[in-house]
Amino acid sequence: MQATHISLAHGNGGRFMRELIEDLVVRCLGSPRLDTDSDAVRLPDAEGPLLITTDGFTVQPLEFPGGDIGALAIHGTVNDLAVAGALPRWLTLNLFIEEGLETAVLERLLTSAGRAAAESGVQMVAGDTKVLRRGEGGGLYLATTGVGTALPGPALDIRSVRAGDRLLVSGPVGDHGIAVMLAREAFGLRGDLASDATSVLPLTRAIRAETGLRFMRDPTRGGLATVCHEISRATGLRVRLEETAIPVRDPVRSVCEMLGYDPLYLACEGRVVAAVASEDAERVLSLWQALPQGAEAAIVGELVEDRPGVELRTSLGGRRMLEELEDDPLPRIC
Amino acid sequence: MQATHISLAHGNGGRFMRELIEDLVVRCLGSPRLDTDSDAVRLPDAEGPLLITTDGFTVQPLEFPGGDIGALAIHGTVNDLAVAGALPRWLTLNLFIEEGLETAVLERLLTSAGRAAAESGVQMVAGDTKVLRRGEGGGLYLATTGVGTALPGPALDIRSVRAGDRLLVSGPVGDHGIAVMLAREAFGLRGDLASDATSVLPLTRAIRAETGLRFMRDPTRGGLATVCHEISRATGLRVRLEETAIPVRDPVRSVCEMLGYDPLYLACEGRVVAAVASEDAERVLSLWQALPQGAEAAIVGELVEDRPGVELRTSLGGRRMLEELEDDPLPRIC
Repeated sequence: MQATHISLAHGNGGRFMRELIEDLVVRCLGSPRLDTDSDAVRLPDAEGPLLITTDGFTVQPLEFPGGDIGALAIHGTVNDLAVAGALPRWLTLNLFIEEGLETAVLERLLTSAGRAAAESGVQMVAGDTKVLRRGEGGGLYLATTGVGTALPGPALDIRSVRAGDRLLVSGPVGDHGIAVMLAREAFGLRGDLASDATSVLPLTRAIRAETGLRFMRDPTRGGLATVCHEISRATGLRVRLEETAIPVRDPVRSVCEMLGYDPLYLACEGRVVAAVASEDAERVLSLWQALPQGAEAAIVGELVEDRPGVELRTSLGGRRMLEELEDDPLPRIC
Repeated sequence: MQATHISLAHGNGGRFMRELIEDLVVRCLGSPRLDTDSDAVRLPDAEGPLLITTDGFTVQPLEFPGGDIGALAIHGTVNDLAVAGALPRWLTLNLFIEEGLETAVLERLLTSAGRAAAESGVQMVAGDTKVLRRGEGGGLYLATTGVGTALPGPALDIRSVRAGDRLLVSGPVGDHGIAVMLAREAFGLRGDLASDATSVLPLTRAIRAETGLRFMRDPTRGGLATVCHEISRATGLRVRLEETAIPVRDPVRSVCEMLGYDPLYLACEGRVVAAVASEDAERVLSLWQALPQGAEAAIVGELVEDRPGVELRTSLGGRRMLEELEDDPLPRIC
């Protein structure tokens, strides 16, 4: 019989841990490739160069409108590979489970992770489980490492972004940050807000081979403004954003105004920012807009020869510089 | 100026996090390959099949006689690749830092990790940093994922272990478990005990090409007894251990007798258990004994056709069955 809650003995390497992994983890993840008998597993042979990335996940609460930490841990690493121009293939998963977590919650989260992996076509190939003492774990932390194969297309590099390039965003910004914040704080606000957390692979594949594509990034922690700062710092150019062009959903805008957040700094988990040569920007935009998850894509700014920084042309016709993020508006957002 | 303690803002994706990573993480790890500008990095081309493994680390205290969580996180993943017959090449690192951790402590731990990586010839290629709220993190948790290239030699598989095969252990068991426990509990016992935590790569490379080699594993959580149970379960054979043959240091034995621990269930972090065809066992033993870290290697048991389980022939001539580990004698040992 399965325990209703996770105990320290589920992390000791012995029988309870073996049963947890064999009975629950493998079943929920639905991963036939997950070899629980080996210290290391062979990656299937692959054509061409491999890319690797890793990410940790500590979002609180563990479940929120539009997603949960299980799916987020898959999408987050899938997305880091996708924006680097790769096809995600294999994932490893680390579980840090807090003693006392309900087994039913763990089961839901792992099932969600398994579903996300299947949807993105990635296989879980290795994992590890640790149990943290009660009070020392926040329920569940995850880490995923992903390996993918390079897709054909131009070299992508933040340093190759040039003056005149356009910046595109694949959809509205700030949804994830606001959805998690509302789920956490129980403000009693209307629940028509959900995280945008999903795989961005359809978006990146659609434009990967475009010759004018210079660079892609998913605007997670720190949001769109932080990606713009990264581009400015890497290139020495100024990023000029048009406030009226940046898609923000009305309920996100309302909550931000009410609570004093700036949606440009809030995390997205299913969006892509792309820098594209000006002559190709409209075509890339139309490729995105043809996809369901890119329907609200927009050209939101450009790179200009000016002192580095991120400049916002406001809806009132003024302009202000967007500072680099310092304080954390929303800790544990991903 | 660097902050003396880690704050939540060091995890937000903005300026403090960038400075933490650029100024401290990269410098301490000493990893020129660590590209902090990219979402995913290309793995260098490699000959032959790749192996992958992942592991999480939550040891408490973070520093203990003979090691610390930084070096342990490197060695642990290096060792999982090594016992799988691979040459470890590349690592990724996830940091989960608790708000309030002293920057000086983090610096020491990362420097130790960097040194361990250099000694094992592995390169850190990607990383991620999250900051956990005060009280929710135990100081520091780490996860490492490792990729290695297969070394030439026979296929290694726990299911290929056969009746008549000998079990070898590369050195005394239980040192890591007892060293960490003493560091944690402050029993006021003598400090002539240190963890065995180190890379086992020299041990595994020395015997990798031996045709009689069936299987290797490093006896971490659950110790030697747990590895024996895993072999018995995978093969349907009985593991018979000779108590007098199993190397255990005197101070480890004394502490175990005093406190009621069994060294056969305690974690090692620098040992290898190998199953070897009987006709090759002596040669493999001599290869290990020729190495400084294998000087105390021993043949400790064999596989026999009998009901599955792990049998210990005791020093008094009796025999008893070693049960599968259930309760956790020492949580957060690695």
